[in-house]
Amino acid sequence: MTQDRVVIGVDLGGTNVRCAGVDDKGRISHHTKLSVAGSASAEAVVARIVDCISRTMDGYGRNRVMGVGVGTPGLIIAETGTVVYAPNVPGWTDLPLRDILEERLKIPVEIENDANAAAIGEHWVGAGRGVRHLICITLGTGVGGAIILNDQIWRGANGAGGEVGHTTVIEDGVICGCGAPGCLEAYASAPAIARQAREALRAGVQSRLTTWCDGNPETITSAMVAQAAEEGDPVAQAVMHRAGTLLGVAVASLTNLLNPELFVIGGGVINAGDLIFKPIWDEIHRRAYKWSASILRVVPAALGDDAGLIGAARNFTLSRPSPS
Amino acid sequence: MTQDRVVIGVDLGGTNVRCAGVDDKGRISHHTKLSVAGSASAEAVVARIVDCISRTMDGYGRNRVMGVGVGTPGLIIAETGTVVYAPNVPGWTDLPLRDILEERLKIPVEIENDANAAAIGEHWVGAGRGVRHLICITLGTGVGGAIILNDQIWRGANGAGGEVGHTTVIEDGVICGCGAPGCLEAYASAPAIARQAREALRAGVQSRLTTWCDGNPETITSAMVAQAAEEGDPVAQAVMHRAGTLLGVAVASLTNLLNPELFVIGGGVINAGDLIFKPIWDEIHRRAYKWSASILRVVPAALGDDAGLIGAARNFTLSRPSPS
Repeated sequence: MTQDRVVIGVDLGGTNVRCAGVDDKGRISHHTKLSVAGSASAEAVVARIVDCISRTMDGYGRNRVMGVGVGTPGLIIAETGTVVYAPNVPGWTDLPLRDILEERLKIPVEIENDANAAAIGEHWVGAGRGVRHLICITLGTGVGGAIILNDQIWRGANGAGGEVGHTTVIEDGVICGCGAPGCLEAYASAPAIARQAREALRAGVQSRLTTWCDGNPETITSAMVAQAAEEGDPVAQAVMHRAGTLLGVAVASLTNLLNPELFVIGGGVINAGDLIFKPIWDEIHRRAYKWSASILRVVPAALGDDAGLIGAARNFTLSRPSPS
Repeated sequence: MTQDRVVIGVDLGGTNVRCAGVDDKGRISHHTKLSVAGSASAEAVVARIVDCISRTMDGYGRNRVMGVGVGTPGLIIAETGTVVYAPNVPGWTDLPLRDILEERLKIPVEIENDANAAAIGEHWVGAGRGVRHLICITLGTGVGGAIILNDQIWRGANGAGGEVGHTTVIEDGVICGCGAPGCLEAYASAPAIARQAREALRAGVQSRLTTWCDGNPETITSAMVAQAAEEGDPVAQAVMHRAGTLLGVAVASLTNLLNPELFVIGGGVINAGDLIFKPIWDEIHRRAYKWSASILRVVPAALGDDAGLIGAARNFTLSRPSPS
């Protein structure tokens, strides 16, 4: 692979699809972003993705692009490039996304789950570089999870492994978007953090969030909670601490189960720093075997929003090793 | 390997050490059992193990014995054959058990954790035969766990992986023997089941267990609880249901995390049948992804008390593949 050639990495989210060329060092260029919000059909989303990829490819010229790696939400079957289902994408059920994109773009394509793609990116050129056994947890719209064992994504028996966000942390807890009670996602995702702050305000507690939201708790976001916590607001700090504690409960259980070397924690919420990382370590010390904890590191993700895009491109290369 | 030759499998428990010859089909013979209860030192336990192995070897003649596989409680480093620590075995800290046994017995030895050994046995000739990805959970003095991925024991980064019994199921629950609150082991081990029955009786609830224990709840065992539950006693049934439910919470989380094909549940308590297995499935249906659950099976262990012994012998063979 010459340095001139790139793989197009694609990150499909609920709001935007983002593309960029990724070189063999993980460096990105020709970043393109298109909105997919309001797309009413499976085809409309596919068309936006094709458009976004085409624009990025045009930035290079076709002969410099080796292929396309896509990271998409939902359950995917890597071998066939099929999206079994994708929450928040209308009509994406049993969609042969790889075949569709290959036919329209006339270029090889590989598909990966977005949380797995982000983990592949962090493992390649981010916070997980050089680590064989690691678990990535991203606190976003959901709580994304990915498990890398022996330098490879653990997909499980039929492709659905790695769902750290859907481990139970409270037996009869808040009902999660997945329908189950007490999942980690129901307490540590960005919307869950905002929800817990709103609940506290509705209970009449005083907080600078009350002023920030102009008396309308519905406008509170997790970023506002993180900001208020950083500025010392006790209500916001308590919410962040609770999310970090339950994240720590899951991390400690995973430490005993899988004995990994590293957890990489991503998502905007990690800007809160010790407000999240300290309760995680408190629970590790409280619950995990000392032997397993002794080699464990917990670090913030390094690639930010680009992790999924970079990892999706890397997944293409890993899935189609060059003949040399 | 001719059918004439055997590996001696050794299962060290808190009360006894048991040995037998295991042939290349997993059949056992020349079973020997010696008590290790009351052994006051590391050396006393080692001497009993050597004695037990020697007696079994005498049953075959040395030239028929290819080696010895030992399953022992505690944290072991398989590569070096070292016991890092073993709860309930006095003085076993950083014990080079493999080297000690090889020197005294003049025969090759391999060491494995007892829960891992049991899983290897079930995977080889028991309930997990032919399955690539499975998790074994044994409800005994503790809750033993072992994870088999791609037909291999998952040991983790420094050998402590697989501790299913020490996943948190109740955030601020009963303190477990490991010191952490709310571990599965604190609710689903045999002593935990007996404890929960005693607590119910002390609260004044009527049960046939009251008669069986002659008014002394301390004498209640998990076997008595299982028996009473089977006979329709509501208190005993509630206790078994609670243990099965929390086991199910852990099983459902593991299903989302690792997406295995099979759980093998072992230990005397599984004689309670549906009283344990039905709540496990209730929680799987309540909490696990349908896609992952759709391929999942949960079955009772098939090898009973011999799983560890058979698996320890098999581990020897797997660790030292014959040159043929």
